[in-house]
Amino acid sequence: MLKEAIAFLGEDFKAAEAVINNNIHSTIKVIPDLSNYILESGGKRFRPVLLMLSASLCGYRGRKAHVASAVVEYIHTATLLHDDVVDEADMRRGQAAAKTIWGNEASVLVGDYLFARSFQMMVHDCGEEVLKIMSGACISLAEGEILQLINSFNPNIAQREYYRTIYGKTAALISACCEVGAVLAGAPESDRHALKEYGEDIGFAFQIVDDCLDITGDPKRTGKPLGIDLKEGKITLPVILTMESAKEKGYQKDLETIKEVVLSDDPAEDFTKVKEIVERHRGVEKSIEIAWRHVNHAITRIENFRDCPEKEYLKGIASFIVERDF
Amino acid sequence: MLKEAIAFLGEDFKAAEAVINNNIHSTIKVIPDLSNYILESGGKRFRPVLLMLSASLCGYRGRKAHVASAVVEYIHTATLLHDDVVDEADMRRGQAAAKTIWGNEASVLVGDYLFARSFQMMVHDCGEEVLKIMSGACISLAEGEILQLINSFNPNIAQREYYRTIYGKTAALISACCEVGAVLAGAPESDRHALKEYGEDIGFAFQIVDDCLDITGDPKRTGKPLGIDLKEGKITLPVILTMESAKEKGYQKDLETIKEVVLSDDPAEDFTKVKEIVERHRGVEKSIEIAWRHVNHAITRIENFRDCPEKEYLKGIASFIVERDF
Repeated sequence: MLKEAIAFLGEDFKAAEAVINNNIHSTIKVIPDLSNYILESGGKRFRPVLLMLSASLCGYRGRKAHVASAVVEYIHTATLLHDDVVDEADMRRGQAAAKTIWGNEASVLVGDYLFARSFQMMVHDCGEEVLKIMSGACISLAEGEILQLINSFNPNIAQREYYRTIYGKTAALISACCEVGAVLAGAPESDRHALKEYGEDIGFAFQIVDDCLDITGDPKRTGKPLGIDLKEGKITLPVILTMESAKEKGYQKDLETIKEVVLSDDPAEDFTKVKEIVERHRGVEKSIEIAWRHVNHAITRIENFRDCPEKEYLKGIASFIVERDF
Repeated sequence: MLKEAIAFLGEDFKAAEAVINNNIHSTIKVIPDLSNYILESGGKRFRPVLLMLSASLCGYRGRKAHVASAVVEYIHTATLLHDDVVDEADMRRGQAAAKTIWGNEASVLVGDYLFARSFQMMVHDCGEEVLKIMSGACISLAEGEILQLINSFNPNIAQREYYRTIYGKTAALISACCEVGAVLAGAPESDRHALKEYGEDIGFAFQIVDDCLDITGDPKRTGKPLGIDLKEGKITLPVILTMESAKEKGYQKDLETIKEVVLSDDPAEDFTKVKEIVERHRGVEKSIEIAWRHVNHAITRIENFRDCPEKEYLKGIASFIVERDF
């Protein structure tokens, strides 16, 4: 569905891709080298596509949307770079993480460069309203990552806290992409609001599915081994729902096993134990159900737009988010 | 001199300080905790003072300058946080570095938060021109830090490369502070340019003196032990000038010793050896001479402004930069 949307965007997608590829100008070689390594590592350009579809839905196609697309891809890339340092992950998208090649320091600093470049491009080309939305989204991103960090290895994390975390680390930026599309088109407040909410809901769905794929996905499709979240101390929705179910049913043993694994020195080793318990309590199925609920909400949010290909693609992408296996 | 300037700025300095202290709103406790720890750790508020003096010199005092002052202090703080992670330094301003209390991850992410918050505040209160200057300065900051990183432990670094590095990591932001002051006052292009150049020159002087203090300073005054730069692989001007002198005079042994120490596993142990060689070649004195040249340039740059207290303070601060022992 993403591929079809990309084909539909046609020259606009190519123009955005060109802006993405041609705006890391630094004469310091490691900056374009490291940036391009990660920018060309098979990212799905999910955020640019959403931004351009939203803009096009509201009647705008053009340069500002191409620049804004590059901006959101740069910001996303910067967070991946900082994320890898924080997570101590060695792999990303099936290839070595940038930091295993260039080191932690370069990853932090090139991430900073990309943030700064994003703001510079916005100031020159996107206008004040976009800057407001994106600076807010960057604050949410940092907050989400920090929440994740302070709740890591905490087996008692509440659903509410999980939602707060994934709002910041995922939903806020995706929501901002859709809202920015509307703003670039000069859309009325109601349309802007509808797209912002659509983005938030698919953002939630996106992260929930990601968290499920970490437990039941196919590493050949996702590009990373299973059980990474647990290894990094991230307690995700399928595990939270499993613990709630175990508590409800009085399965004390299951609860204890999960807590032990989370708090053990190498949770990865015991991943299969946790997976078996999650499967027994249908933690993944319940999570996917919740993801579908968000997707359906998202689709309702944009129901009032006139029927057109953009609307169909946005609806299709919403469903694709849950149906994907990567 | 900084103290006198602060007294001169009076209520404006207090208002800026209030903006600095009251704009980290996050409900995630570690964000204000960590930010305030470093914001209150005895920073000299050098950049806010320069910004407000420049604005006042051009005829503006008021809220925009207070906000912009907080912005430059936040950006500076964010780079310190990321810098400490990169440098693997355990101390900062005579106290434990934030990362030794909260960890590397939190330092990276709270740094990101501060960057984002800075841009958010600028969008709301400072206008497009300030955003342009500051996003450019942030790019330079990242570039300077990256240059420093890729040239670390390289005993053959050229003077030109050293200048490029300190321009990015220090002079660019200080220059931006002074230029922003002029912009907020709506000053004519020539005044803006003069203050920008003034800032660049005192920025160079500031970093050169800092690099000298690392070799001959008093740890009780600077708040950090001697020889940190060498330990972190930073080859600074006094050492570069010493090597040039040794080369010129054919003191092969001195050259070899410095190179050996730089490339050894623990350069800190041999710091006294290097210090002795630098003293013999008058590396620090020659560097301070160069710093004075920058200061004199800086003073010439603002000579055309009418005589007034602001001009005197800016001239005084320029000299203070080289005369200080901390």
